[in-house]
Amino acid sequence: MSGSSFGKIFRLHTFGESHGVAIGGIIDGCPAGLEVDAARVQRELDLRKPGQSTLTSARAEDDRIEILSGIFQGKTTGAPIGFIIRNKDQRSSDYDQLSGAYRPSHADYTYEKKYGTRDHSGGGRSSARETACRVAAGAIARIFLEQMGISIAAYVRQVGEIGVTADHSTLDLASTYSNAVRCPEKGTAEKMTTLIEEARSQGDTVGGIIQCVIKGLPVGFGEPVFDKLHALLGHAMLSINAVKGFEVGSGFYGATRRGSQENDVFEPDDSGGIRTRTNNSGGIQGGISNGMPVVVNVAFKPVSTLMREQQTVDRSGTPVKINPGGRHDPCVLPRAVPVVEAMAALVIADCALMARSARI
Amino acid sequence: MSGSSFGKIFRLHTFGESHGVAIGGIIDGCPAGLEVDAARVQRELDLRKPGQSTLTSARAEDDRIEILSGIFQGKTTGAPIGFIIRNKDQRSSDYDQLSGAYRPSHADYTYEKKYGTRDHSGGGRSSARETACRVAAGAIARIFLEQMGISIAAYVRQVGEIGVTADHSTLDLASTYSNAVRCPEKGTAEKMTTLIEEARSQGDTVGGIIQCVIKGLPVGFGEPVFDKLHALLGHAMLSINAVKGFEVGSGFYGATRRGSQENDVFEPDDSGGIRTRTNNSGGIQGGISNGMPVVVNVAFKPVSTLMREQQTVDRSGTPVKINPGGRHDPCVLPRAVPVVEAMAALVIADCALMARSARI
Amino acid sequence: MSGSSFGKIFRLHTFGESHGVAIGGIIDGCPAGLEVDAARVQRELDLRKPGQSTLTSARAEDDRIEILSGIFQGKTTGAPIGFIIRNKDQRSSDYDQLSGAYRPSHADYTYEKKYGTRDHSGGGRSSARETACRVAAGAIARIFLEQMGISIAAYVRQVGEIGVTADHSTLDLASTYSNAVRCPEKGTAEKMTTLIEEARSQGDTVGGIIQCVIKGLPVGFGEPVFDKLHALLGHAMLSINAVKGFEVGSGFYGATRRGSQENDVFEPDDSGGIRTRTNNSGGIQGGISNGMPVVVNVAFKPVSTLMREQQTVDRSGTPVKINPGGRHDPCVLPRAVPVVEAMAALVIADCALMARSARI
Amino acid sequence: MSGSSFGKIFRLHTFGESHGVAIGGIIDGCPAGLEVDAARVQRELDLRKPGQSTLTSARAEDDRIEILSGIFQGKTTGAPIGFIIRNKDQRSSDYDQLSGAYRPSHADYTYEKKYGTRDHSGGGRSSARETACRVAAGAIARIFLEQMGISIAAYVRQVGEIGVTADHSTLDLASTYSNAVRCPEKGTAEKMTTLIEEARSQGDTVGGIIQCVIKGLPVGFGEPVFDKLHALLGHAMLSINAVKGFEVGSGFYGATRRGSQENDVFEPDDSGGIRTRTNNSGGIQGGISNGMPVVVNVAFKPVSTLMREQQTVDRSGTPVKINPGGRHDPCVLPRAVPVVEAMAALVIADCALMARSARI
Repeated sequence: MSGSSFGKIFRLHTFGESHGVAIGGIIDGCPAGLEVDAARVQRELDLRKPGQSTLTSARAEDDRIEILSGIFQGKTTGAPIGFIIRNKDQRSSDYDQLSGAYRPSHADYTYEKKYGTRDHSGGGRSSARETACRVAAGAIARIFLEQMGISIAAYVRQVGEIGVTADHSTLDLASTYSNAVRCPEKGTAEKMTTLIEEARSQGDTVGGIIQCVIKGLPVGFGEPVFDKLHALLGHAMLSINAVKGFEVGSGFYGATRRGSQENDVFEPDDSGGIRTRTNNSGGIQGGISNGMPVVVNVAFKPVSTLMREQQTVDRSGTPVKINPGGRHDPCVLPRAVPVVEAMAALVIADCALMARSARI
Repeated sequence: MSGSSFGKIFRLHTFGESHGVAIGGIIDGCPAGLEVDAARVQRELDLRKPGQSTLTSARAEDDRIEILSGIFQGKTTGAPIGFIIRNKDQRSSDYDQLSGAYRPSHADYTYEKKYGTRDHSGGGRSSARETACRVAAGAIARIFLEQMGISIAAYVRQVGEIGVTADHSTLDLASTYSNAVRCPEKGTAEKMTTLIEEARSQGDTVGGIIQCVIKGLPVGFGEPVFDKLHALLGHAMLSINAVKGFEVGSGFYGATRRGSQENDVFEPDDSGGIRTRTNNSGGIQGGISNGMPVVVNVAFKPVSTLMREQQTVDRSGTPVKINPGGRHDPCVLPRAVPVVEAMAALVIADCALMARSARI
Repeated sequence: MSGSSFGKIFRLHTFGESHGVAIGGIIDGCPAGLEVDAARVQRELDLRKPGQSTLTSARAEDDRIEILSGIFQGKTTGAPIGFIIRNKDQRSSDYDQLSGAYRPSHADYTYEKKYGTRDHSGGGRSSARETACRVAAGAIARIFLEQMGISIAAYVRQVGEIGVTADHSTLDLASTYSNAVRCPEKGTAEKMTTLIEEARSQGDTVGGIIQCVIKGLPVGFGEPVFDKLHALLGHAMLSINAVKGFEVGSGFYGATRRGSQENDVFEPDDSGGIRTRTNNSGGIQGGISNGMPVVVNVAFKPVSTLMREQQTVDRSGTPVKINPGGRHDPCVLPRAVPVVEAMAALVIADCALMARSARI
Repeated sequence: MSGSSFGKIFRLHTFGESHGVAIGGIIDGCPAGLEVDAARVQRELDLRKPGQSTLTSARAEDDRIEILSGIFQGKTTGAPIGFIIRNKDQRSSDYDQLSGAYRPSHADYTYEKKYGTRDHSGGGRSSARETACRVAAGAIARIFLEQMGISIAAYVRQVGEIGVTADHSTLDLASTYSNAVRCPEKGTAEKMTTLIEEARSQGDTVGGIIQCVIKGLPVGFGEPVFDKLHALLGHAMLSINAVKGFEVGSGFYGATRRGSQENDVFEPDDSGGIRTRTNNSGGIQGGISNGMPVVVNVAFKPVSTLMREQQTVDRSGTPVKINPGGRHDPCVLPRAVPVVEAMAALVIADCALMARSARI
């Protein structure tokens, strides 16, 4: 299996299955001299872990990170940062009854055909638990970016058909984590919560959209042609479990419009520089950041594990019914907010280092 | 500038500016023994070149490919395939008047700030002309895929607010290239054509959506975690000029729905295998192809070059007006169809080779 | 710090400092379905660990590997194999007196200048302890190669000026690990032992050469041009601590000779195939294995840590004398034999997977 | 075929066969703003081309480079630099008689087995002609390095058994290219010339050693662990045709010595910094440059094409005799000097850019 690495200079490699001994990773290429507060990394992990509210699954994971290398006396040394997160909750009995059946819209079937082996016991490598490693690495990337004045804030913009209508610039993104659904628009958050509760009561699940806003980027991040900034961000986001769509700036909506409506006119800004009057480009032109906020939307499908009976087939192709036990998230979006932020941070940190080679 | 390479095993490296001597590329990692008909490669290039209809710009480029290596007696030798496409139409005078002004939503400003030099004369490296190299390489990738029974067909699904409503499975995708707008639904194609003509008559431009359908994939292409098949496809598509959004399967629409609506139930197929009853997953589960058609949508913004006066600023930050001469596409989508197909082919060819290492 | 990854498809990423909490790594790209006996991996690690004989340092490390993922019911699953090796012996007091002084021919000075931080306490990332991770990964690569009938055997060919004169083909390479110095020629092994003991009694150290012989390779491993098989092997071996030279086949000696002496004449072999009469090429022609044994020599400098007083300077540039405590290897070669074998295995496993894409 | 790319940030991709239409390459990642004199690039190519003296083959190649992109008004733009070198001398008749026979110690056999196709007509991709692309790219890398005060000088240190005995520091390396054999020690150069003439008169060939000296490196180039500076240099040099050995500093000789003899003692230098009294480390400690000259030796086997009858087998395994026509170099070393310099330049330029990410 390849594909367990992300980034070119600031790199993350991950390992670990949902119900194995531990998951973990290596962050390679983090510059030396960065002050890293391990408690901060843990706090970001805590925002992703299950069991934080009635909206998320009750799986009792601590997600306690153990950093094994690369940090000495509170600073990065330049050496790779190895870390592990032990799996506390290794019971796989919930899944045992399923071992012969392919769960609809899960990876059971594709993994088994590809590797000749079932990605056993609850998802294994395909489990969203793997994203904890991304959050850990993303936390360190964010600390690096904050030094440069770059901030990243994601929030739940839509759940099912209920969405925020205001522009991100009018929202208090600092308040995102103050409610369980992680939507900074209070009334909308309440409606989303109701919808998620309703879905859960029906044994159903619901999808949605997370928006991520990156501010403080200098002009010049992103590489032309194949590694455009939004192509890297798209790659990053689409690699998160359950993500099925990505757009930057006005995205799919912009595709319905005219150039005269979409073009972002340049104008002088207040500090003697240049800005664009609108930001339909989402902060990126020609694949390179233009100094405006980078704004992307990430579409998540509804969770595939339903708390109700579903039809499927088993390994022999025989139709069977499955009815999973255990507890599962009726909506993955609240816990995915820190994952989206982490992937954004990894991309931007990597671009920041790549940009150091743009000129002699 | 990094970012001029794409792929891991089946790789493409490109070079060349719009108004320089030539553009070109190297295809490295193409397996030996593949019969390559150079005329076929040229035909795919011809589908992308300007001046094919009244809908596209009249820039008189031949886009004549010269293959310099890697093919001997009609077969790939395993050696890298180097090729160049000479630029016939090097007049840059159309652009000279613009040299001090930043065109709205173009890369002028970001390139200049990143590299300390203007990406001169008509877009240079940021010009969509670079995509000709992708089409050339994609043509060879497609020949490789066709050997495996894999076909790729893209078409214009939407222009502005006019879209195809039928599912791709009911369209005759073989007829896509029979009309100038490259939409296989005849009535819709006519409406799209009218819309594009209207935009052009106003000096305006219009965006849209291209859908790409990949059939015949075996189960098992794509790598888990960071290099999921749709993450690679997303990266590929988002790296095409003017692309601002990407989705797989039901994508953004699926994000508004319930798990019970979106889940793709497995069922026996007619040949003793397994298929899914619906294909909301777009042929990919857990990042790996499941044997159903892979279906992706690619959103293009309207072309940024308007045939009318626009406000902007120049290098010193002073507001100026620009009014480009020359001829430009009012809608990039018809010419982008072969580019989308090419990028899909490059991704799938690479995944096909990567999949050879999945098992002992 | 980049540079903690090795390989293209069969990849190893490592982390960890000598005196930190743990070292470890991730093996990504190992094909699924490989039977891996964890005890075998541990046995190979045991061959590298300190304290095995009077010839090596007495550092009390268990080097007990904990495999955290990627293996299920004794077989690789295709998922990345994460592992850690805890550091038992974290006392760094031996090194504390040195903290201001740059040890001659160590990495203290270069790390401090590069990263702005001392690679503290006994070598940190630059310690040869890191090679334990290579041995663990190499063990799994070897199991993969053995399935293909490929064997790897390294041995100490020279210590100081005492060397084996016989060709490897006349040695019993299976007996290498039967003596402490790891030289299969018994009389020579005794002389080497005497030399090492003598150096140690003088507080001095001694270098030497390890030869590695790889048999059973099919024709066709290695990539032309930049990734020739011996270029990859050279990269691998030169990345081992203390290695200062590498040669394949007749190497430096061959450079003194005539083409008529060095050319390997092809002749029929006994099984209807082709072999070369001599093997001055060391099993590689044009960068690609030719089916003959691959034979490489790896030169190690004498260990830099002397058990005697040495002159140096401290951080301020002031001349100081240092006199290390602790116990150190007077000769690194016996413990480096499994490291050389491991690096060879990693290269060949990677080439084996790359070779799967050579033809359609 | 993979393996046609070299470097991580400052990258070279090459293509082209000896007797095809053209060879060429793409330099990606060269920083913007570098003044590049195309005539300088051509001059370095001229130093490698055949027919420069009676010591080298008379193949009438101009090696005229055509730079197609990436340089505007004499400066790099940051865009990839594409270039081609047309093959003038495409007659392959000299080689036709050989088409069924495997030339001893050539790549005919291994290419044919790997790719299922003969690397036809005179070596094809395995021909040393490919190194012209390295020289072109290396010339640009050198210009970049010279800006930093880094100089690279290689010279022929040994031909057959005739070698320079003086240390490089006492040689006038600026005079290397003043004689045909490219050895700066005049008397030795004459003996080498005599030896090469003698070998040629016998239809034989002779090998040798090139030494490369890199001065002006700051402390801190090279990455720990797998990408040590000398591992990268070794990879680079071993990828040159006919190279069979590599050593840094005292290399194989140092392996015969004691630590007390080999250790490089630090001492204050004249400008308030630190240097080492000796340079047995060859300017590299722990894989990272220490500010002293980097000194490496590269061993070349004698050319495999003899101007005399040789025994071999053909495709069917039948013994045959071959007797090549054409003209061939009796000794490849004089023409390889600029190739060694080019590969050194590519490695150091890449390390210079990687080093920009070492610290926050």
